[in-house]
Amino acid sequence: MRTFLKAVLPALVLTSTARGQSAPAGGAGTFVKEFGTMWTFDAPPLGYWKSQYQFEPSAAWLESARLSAVRIPGCSASIVSNRGLVMTNHHCARACITAVSPPDSNFQALGFVAKDEASERPCPGMTADQLQSITDVTARVRGAVTAATPPARVAQRDSAIAAIEQACNREAGATCQVVAFYQGGQYSLYRYRRFTDLRLVMAPEEEISFYGGDPDNFTFPRYDLDVTFVRIYENGAPLRPANHFRWSATGAKEGDFVFVIGNPGSTGRLLTLAQMHYLRDVQYPATLEAFAEQITAFKELAARGETERRRYENNIFSLENSQKATKGYRAGLLDSAIMARKAAFEKDFRARVMANPGFKGQYGAAWDNIAKAQQELALFAKEVRFQGFGGSAQLGLAGAIVRLPQQAALPDEARLPAFKGEGLERVKANLLRAQTIDTASERVLLTAQLRMAQRNLPATDPFLQAALAGRTPEAAAAALLSGTRLASTEVRTALVDGGAPAVSASNDPLIVLARTINALATRHAMRALRLNTTISANAELIGQAIFAAYGTSLPPDATFTIRISDGIVRGFPMNGTIAPYKTSFYGLFARSAEFDDQPPFRIPERWKAARDRLDMTAPLNFVSTNDIIGGNSGSPVINREGQVVGLIFDGNIESLPNRFIFTDEVARSVSVSTRGILEALRKVYGAGRIADELEGRD
Amino acid sequence: MRTFLKAVLPALVLTSTARGQSAPAGGAGTFVKEFGTMWTFDAPPLGYWKSQYQFEPSAAWLESARLSAVRIPGCSASIVSNRGLVMTNHHCARACITAVSPPDSNFQALGFVAKDEASERPCPGMTADQLQSITDVTARVRGAVTAATPPARVAQRDSAIAAIEQACNREAGATCQVVAFYQGGQYSLYRYRRFTDLRLVMAPEEEISFYGGDPDNFTFPRYDLDVTFVRIYENGAPLRPANHFRWSATGAKEGDFVFVIGNPGSTGRLLTLAQMHYLRDVQYPATLEAFAEQITAFKELAARGETERRRYENNIFSLENSQKATKGYRAGLLDSAIMARKAAFEKDFRARVMANPGFKGQYGAAWDNIAKAQQELALFAKEVRFQGFGGSAQLGLAGAIVRLPQQAALPDEARLPAFKGEGLERVKANLLRAQTIDTASERVLLTAQLRMAQRNLPATDPFLQAALAGRTPEAAAAALLSGTRLASTEVRTALVDGGAPAVSASNDPLIVLARTINALATRHAMRALRLNTTISANAELIGQAIFAAYGTSLPPDATFTIRISDGIVRGFPMNGTIAPYKTSFYGLFARSAEFDDQPPFRIPERWKAARDRLDMTAPLNFVSTNDIIGGNSGSPVINREGQVVGLIFDGNIESLPNRFIFTDEVARSVSVSTRGILEALRKVYGAGRIADELEGRD
Repeated sequence: MRTFLKAVLPALVLTSTARGQSAPAGGAGTFVKEFGTMWTFDAPPLGYWKSQYQFEPSAAWLESARLSAVRIPGCSASIVSNRGLVMTNHHCARACITAVSPPDSNFQALGFVAKDEASERPCPGMTADQLQSITDVTARVRGAVTAATPPARVAQRDSAIAAIEQACNREAGATCQVVAFYQGGQYSLYRYRRFTDLRLVMAPEEEISFYGGDPDNFTFPRYDLDVTFVRIYENGAPLRPANHFRWSATGAKEGDFVFVIGNPGSTGRLLTLAQMHYLRDVQYPATLEAFAEQITAFKELAARGETERRRYENNIFSLENSQKATKGYRAGLLDSAIMARKAAFEKDFRARVMANPGFKGQYGAAWDNIAKAQQELALFAKEVRFQGFGGSAQLGLAGAIVRLPQQAALPDEARLPAFKGEGLERVKANLLRAQTIDTASERVLLTAQLRMAQRNLPATDPFLQAALAGRTPEAAAAALLSGTRLASTEVRTALVDGGAPAVSASNDPLIVLARTINALATRHAMRALRLNTTISANAELIGQAIFAAYGTSLPPDATFTIRISDGIVRGFPMNGTIAPYKTSFYGLFARSAEFDDQPPFRIPERWKAARDRLDMTAPLNFVSTNDIIGGNSGSPVINREGQVVGLIFDGNIESLPNRFIFTDEVARSVSVSTRGILEALRKVYGAGRIADELEGRD
Repeated sequence: MRTFLKAVLPALVLTSTARGQSAPAGGAGTFVKEFGTMWTFDAPPLGYWKSQYQFEPSAAWLESARLSAVRIPGCSASIVSNRGLVMTNHHCARACITAVSPPDSNFQALGFVAKDEASERPCPGMTADQLQSITDVTARVRGAVTAATPPARVAQRDSAIAAIEQACNREAGATCQVVAFYQGGQYSLYRYRRFTDLRLVMAPEEEISFYGGDPDNFTFPRYDLDVTFVRIYENGAPLRPANHFRWSATGAKEGDFVFVIGNPGSTGRLLTLAQMHYLRDVQYPATLEAFAEQITAFKELAARGETERRRYENNIFSLENSQKATKGYRAGLLDSAIMARKAAFEKDFRARVMANPGFKGQYGAAWDNIAKAQQELALFAKEVRFQGFGGSAQLGLAGAIVRLPQQAALPDEARLPAFKGEGLERVKANLLRAQTIDTASERVLLTAQLRMAQRNLPATDPFLQAALAGRTPEAAAAALLSGTRLASTEVRTALVDGGAPAVSASNDPLIVLARTINALATRHAMRALRLNTTISANAELIGQAIFAAYGTSLPPDATFTIRISDGIVRGFPMNGTIAPYKTSFYGLFARSAEFDDQPPFRIPERWKAARDRLDMTAPLNFVSTNDIIGGNSGSPVINREGQVVGLIFDGNIESLPNRFIFTDEVARSVSVSTRGILEALRKVYGAGRIADELEGRD
């Protein structure tokens, strides 16, 4: 899996706005399945675990589990030996693997095994954060918010958060973050110990770590050794951690109760029905239309020859992958059974709010406010999509050139978000920097954009008239792009330096188009901004209402902070038959044979050579019902004894709808088995040293 | 695949009624994809093949292919050596394999390999029919139909057909059948040479022939060696056939253009939209509800203990399989894109009919007549389902006992179909015969039936009132079944012999219930009969109209007679990724390992022992886009050189909707590879003798 489980927007959690609401008002013990099982460590659902699994972890069990798990940039990881060995996914350690490759080699393709500790290679810039404590700071944040206007309140809140974080960061070795849960229903200070000396120990070939490539991405059965080991060093020596997960040499078996401990990045389970309908009916269809057009465009390019095929195949794969993910997210929103659960919850929740006079006044209008704003957004969604500067990098540059003097002349608060504060200088710097423009893809992508615009807008639309001027999309794109000189840094610099007069005087066809459409585009952008601000302010109220009504008995949306999710190792019904709970080394060789060992189903030579040594029945990957999402990549899967049995690296395609509503009938998390990892370390990679360390034999 | 590809109703083709319509009126060259590619040998689509595949078979090629294929009871097969070796599916040769097993052994479980010809074991009653000629007899059949009333016309037609068949059968060695195509649009005399001495040569273990069992049935990827070899003998010696398929030792590869030659049993592609809507909205939902209730009932029984589990697991598997198939058929009818194609065809076709004054008068009203009858059927479909004698074998016997004297008193033409002619005596004989009644399953099944009745009918329904009498379904079933004595042959005999007075006097609770409900049940049955007769008469008109409008350019619905279907060997998109076009021996061992070698995923010991000798990358099964259905089991897959490359044994789950509308985006036929068969024969079964013969080395 390439992009799915890496967190995309961890910073998001710090941008939401707090609104006055005091501590939770009970509801403890409620378990609402569709909110999933991403529990925080300061509110573990002990009663639910006890009733569901007859499992009652001690405080020490939970503390040890928390301290054995670490967060790395964009991903999760775990400490798995008493010498600071850390396990994560290969796709989470790419930056390190690439950085430590010598100039004449490529560990990404070839893999890497350090023969001893001295050969372990420092990963530049890589860090690992271990959560030390969680402190509720809701009252402190709220207490600082006294102003009347929303912008002033946001500023007060942000500065209170910054003050709390700064005070905490002054403690020796602490790295601190205030996390907003329930969209501002609760604020917690997360204090981490940050490790900064991590060294690469072992990485397999990308062919086996990402076996099956984009086609198999987000699916199961699966055959990926998506693992990489790094080691934490402290003062030049391997860390001797106080806590680490012990290793299970046998892995998981069907029916096992297991936990996943990691940092899920972002979910949308608190979204209202109206927000989900907008995604389903407006936003995702638009995204999918664009993906389809862009894929067609790149395929057209790739068909021109072998060079072009190689050049664009990654664009195609990446778009197809995004298309697959988006279709998956949307599938849940289109599923009437899933949406009925959501509707039932919302109905019940709104009824509870309306039945409590305090809640009613504070939160009662939020759902309708959101619904109204979404409806208005839908009215001009097509105009926002097309009456702008999309479809071509150079048209984007033209838009920025036209806007720059205009936005600079406005007071900060009246500007478009990208031009606020330091944004203005960033936009300018970007325009003055040399750009790589791929003229071939510019042509097909702008054509695709104009084709979509023509399909979606009436012929009288001002953008269409300005852009097409009676020409076909193909002819218009060709004329606009062959006429423009904006690929030249000198040309752009002259326009930026010349300011408004230079822009007005330009007859560069893209500048002319951008100039013509800019007033309209800016009006749409400001209107959408206003509506989205309304939506997020009301969404925060709803988050607070959930916390007020249910407390921590419902897990908050994902925040790229540590969670513990319970689940069961279990196969699932698939395509008329049963998918097994695990795959085997046999299965890996089978998939290779069945695709004639062609990429992305080729097996590395080292594996072919090892074939006769391998226990072909050993488990390679397995699935469980744990609740994960992007950011959970690299999370350990542990059993009730606290032993690590697996390593999360993906979800199956049936799990994509879990972004909005959690279900576990067919949705599964996909992990590498610790049994399979040992088999590969010992028999494929000759890495007995690492295997012994994992098994505690060193 | 257990039941899917065996033809169920070959006799059906002889029961449809001919209506006056002369020879086809052109339309040649039209190719309408949704009618599929089940071509007859007297109207091969040479132009379509040429344009689609640049393939122009000679008359000799076609004749040799036709003579190399044979039909066996319920299935298809092919002659694959110059010594009369015949290949079919294991599941098509069950009767023979069981019959030739010695008392102390079971070839079904253990497999069988004849070490030499002398050891080949005669299959009692098994025949193979080789089609010698096809003669159009439409004019002869139609010419004999001169009467005015429908029943008299049917009798004239049937006697004309019987006369044609009898005359043909008098020729030495000929076995003849008149086949009605296009529901009576065309009649053809099929003259076969019948072989009656077939001997078992080789059969694998059922564990490998039906590997994956019911779960994997109707799915792909797949790993079944569903093959059996028999040999045709003539005058005590192996047949030296004039024609046989040569064997491809390499099998098929992706993209290959291939034909399937076999005997598809039954399709419903000529059904009107109204008929499909009835299936989709009334009949299949009722069937599925019943399957679900029965599965629940048997699972409840099976949960009682190990003996019960063994006793009922086959019932459960078989019901789940039927459920899977029915859901698959219905899936196509629920697919709006598929139904839109059907609607577009029907609209176009009806417009053509209405535009031709002759056609309009003859056929124009047929669609509306069918729609009206289906609507009326839907009105009392629930009453037909429940106000009768279903859900219990003993209640069925009670119904027959009550009806017998009553129906016997009526003139033949006024009777229910089951009691017409010799039917009356059959019903009586059945009642007087000893019956095996399973009281445990009777109880849960009748409960399930009453539960469904209660769910579907108003509380005031007379059947419900008579059957439940205020009790729960459980209590009513218990009381009815513990009170009845109908399991006793003596009790039934006394009631049958005693006639109407005995029936009236009986206070057996099931007889009382049957007596109470009989008048209502009979009225429903007669009304449904009238409507179904209307539907079939009008469906025949539509079949004739299709033939009149399109001629043989559209293949007729399946008739369990020989067809040749074109297709391409090709993988398909599946569950977010790609299914390969083939599976491998590795894949077989993988599936076993991934289910811990538990049934139905266990590999026979002989295979485990052979593991290290096998080429694990050899293809085992593969898929292609050929158009097949029940009856095609055992069909050879041949390449353009006329070599056999595979053996059809199933379709994937995505192909189930093809029953009504053919598509080939994801629907695939599933075959055993000839390469895999050779590998298994030589390395698992020590059957080099057979492998050499197939390869022409003997």
